[in-house]
Amino acid sequence: MSRPIITLTTDFGSNDSYVPAMKGVILAICPEVTLVDICHEVEPQAIGQAAYLLSTASPYFPPGTVHLVVVDPGVGTERWPIAVRTGRASYVAPDNGVLSLVLHREPAQMAVHLSEPRYHLPEVSATFHGRDIFAPAAAHLARGIDPAQMGPPFSPSRLITLRGPVSLPEHSGSWQGEIVHIDHFGNLVTNFQISHSRSRLALTVGGQRIEPLHHTFADVDPGQMLVYRGSGGYLEVAVREGNAAAELGVRVGDPVQAESLL
Amino acid sequence: MSRPIITLTTDFGSNDSYVPAMKGVILAICPEVTLVDICHEVEPQAIGQAAYLLSTASPYFPPGTVHLVVVDPGVGTERWPIAVRTGRASYVAPDNGVLSLVLHREPAQMAVHLSEPRYHLPEVSATFHGRDIFAPAAAHLARGIDPAQMGPPFSPSRLITLRGPVSLPEHSGSWQGEIVHIDHFGNLVTNFQISHSRSRLALTVGGQRIEPLHHTFADVDPGQMLVYRGSGGYLEVAVREGNAAAELGVRVGDPVQAESLL
Amino acid sequence: MSRPIITLTTDFGSNDSYVPAMKGVILAICPEVTLVDICHEVEPQAIGQAAYLLSTASPYFPPGTVHLVVVDPGVGTERWPIAVRTGRASYVAPDNGVLSLVLHREPAQMAVHLSEPRYHLPEVSATFHGRDIFAPAAAHLARGIDPAQMGPPFSPSRLITLRGPVSLPEHSGSWQGEIVHIDHFGNLVTNFQISHSRSRLALTVGGQRIEPLHHTFADVDPGQMLVYRGSGGYLEVAVREGNAAAELGVRVGDPVQAESLL
Repeated sequence: MSRPIITLTTDFGSNDSYVPAMKGVILAICPEVTLVDICHEVEPQAIGQAAYLLSTASPYFPPGTVHLVVVDPGVGTERWPIAVRTGRASYVAPDNGVLSLVLHREPAQMAVHLSEPRYHLPEVSATFHGRDIFAPAAAHLARGIDPAQMGPPFSPSRLITLRGPVSLPEHSGSWQGEIVHIDHFGNLVTNFQISHSRSRLALTVGGQRIEPLHHTFADVDPGQMLVYRGSGGYLEVAVREGNAAAELGVRVGDPVQAESLL
Repeated sequence: MSRPIITLTTDFGSNDSYVPAMKGVILAICPEVTLVDICHEVEPQAIGQAAYLLSTASPYFPPGTVHLVVVDPGVGTERWPIAVRTGRASYVAPDNGVLSLVLHREPAQMAVHLSEPRYHLPEVSATFHGRDIFAPAAAHLARGIDPAQMGPPFSPSRLITLRGPVSLPEHSGSWQGEIVHIDHFGNLVTNFQISHSRSRLALTVGGQRIEPLHHTFADVDPGQMLVYRGSGGYLEVAVREGNAAAELGVRVGDPVQAESLL
Repeated sequence: MSRPIITLTTDFGSNDSYVPAMKGVILAICPEVTLVDICHEVEPQAIGQAAYLLSTASPYFPPGTVHLVVVDPGVGTERWPIAVRTGRASYVAPDNGVLSLVLHREPAQMAVHLSEPRYHLPEVSATFHGRDIFAPAAAHLARGIDPAQMGPPFSPSRLITLRGPVSLPEHSGSWQGEIVHIDHFGNLVTNFQISHSRSRLALTVGGQRIEPLHHTFADVDPGQMLVYRGSGGYLEVAVREGNAAAELGVRVGDPVQAESLL
């Protein structure tokens, strides 16, 4: 059997000992694990951004991977720590919607409330459930423990969900969406998805209208702005060899309008 | 036998090839190792901060882990490269106090001066002992080499130490401490530790008095400042959904005063 | 047999899911791999800087390591994805010169154009060949697939090359070079290499002349600027306990002049 894999997505940054403490906990329980960082630079408590990053990375991991997400504005409140199993992978996270986008694609088959103290660290702090509850749960799942041992199952229909992506339908029209992520190059990722080619498509963002839909950066001149279907399946806006976010003065959460003709 | 683990803590940042060169050296000597980054964003040559980060992550790693620390203002001078063994783990570092906090909790059982050239890289540069001396030493320890092969033992009582944490004693009073770390969220970590609950405790920092001791963020309203026992066992100051360091205008090393009534 | 190793060097930063998506692809093909990040903070599309960082880290990895480099301004154009094998390691990258410095030291024995779709992901996007072409190629090499299966071989003499390092010869004179990298501490790395000691050597950079050649930081007082042979074999300029780049106001690509007397 091949080695189990756990991925980690947090808003803990890389200046602290939070993430390595979680990794130490995991390795103490499941020494054979392969650990992979998805991202620790999620903006503080930005559940929607974490959901997007997880959903664009997780499909590329092998079946059976355990994905651990700790973006947890509700630590210390009554929100539930949960584990969710789909046909493809397991997820450990607070129940705050951060799994919405992955569960949109891979329906949840089972959800449990991680309330069984036997699978927590012996001492659970008030402020760091990532280390004390979520990391041990992920490690036990990676070892093959049945999630039903770790707390009571509940119906996946009760999971908290965020607004999902906007799939542009197969007819003409106009839709409202938003910027869900700005990448390292200043490219804007929107929540619009398309599966069919369009005779005409335009996005309006930051007061600027960008059209038509291009295939790749090389279709425009350096310095020119373009809209294209990004590698994650979402419509994105970029400036070739430039920074679209800086040029448009926009931020995560700003509105985007799409117009399309089939 | 399970795979050996080496953790890395440096002030090398993540823009350079220093850390991966060290990892290459380690993998060439000990191919089966699991490598875990603790932190590479220690402020340049900030020994106290590195000591804090190491001490809050290392207790969560399995027994037998090798912790490699390269925060080394003295590279090129006569400071000693050392290996230290405790009842729980091994440590490789320059002898500059960076192990003080972990050794406060886990007493050193053995210390050696890493002077044996057979366990260095064949060519030792003047400026990068992390790659040429420390990384090979950590890898040889992870393979199970006896530290006594790697240089002469000396009494752990001769190890250089920094000022340790201030444990608030079981009587009332007032104490001086400092900010040892500011985390990714702007939370201030002080060097005050408490093990007993208090009827009344107040911290004064950046000209502001913060009281009483709270249990968790959810005990105060968004935007309000609070003092609490952090997940590392130290008193910390935070603003719920805010940034305490920015609000108070303070930095690592700034003074903090504690007053307590039992 | 020991576990295969793949290193990753990109300009993707650490705020996105690009790097973890590549790692997921690799683990799905080669589950036993050890993944090591060289650097993901290469300045966007800075081929010369990536070439430098790779060349200073790769020599320390064990023979047989696969080095994956995705700094790819030409994605979406006709530039070739390639694999190159030397006597020591394998390299997967776009053919844009990013391997020049390593191949200067380890001559290429074989180069192939990664055109065989069987070794790509089933769907190749227009903008993310790192995930869809380069990562699968690296993983298949790590599993032991013969590169000749992955596309047609071509003569390594046809590989695109960048200007290499300037080796100061064994006679006196004056030479022009440049800053190829500025490290985390603000130290300047030049493209000058020396293998022989000099009776006199001076660098001029940012309008300031720095001499003589020193051995290590401890040879000068805190705050003083010095030139020394860095741990990567290149001449570097630093300020002891300071930041040379900030003090001189220089950037990657700025000119440096060397004068030497043997």
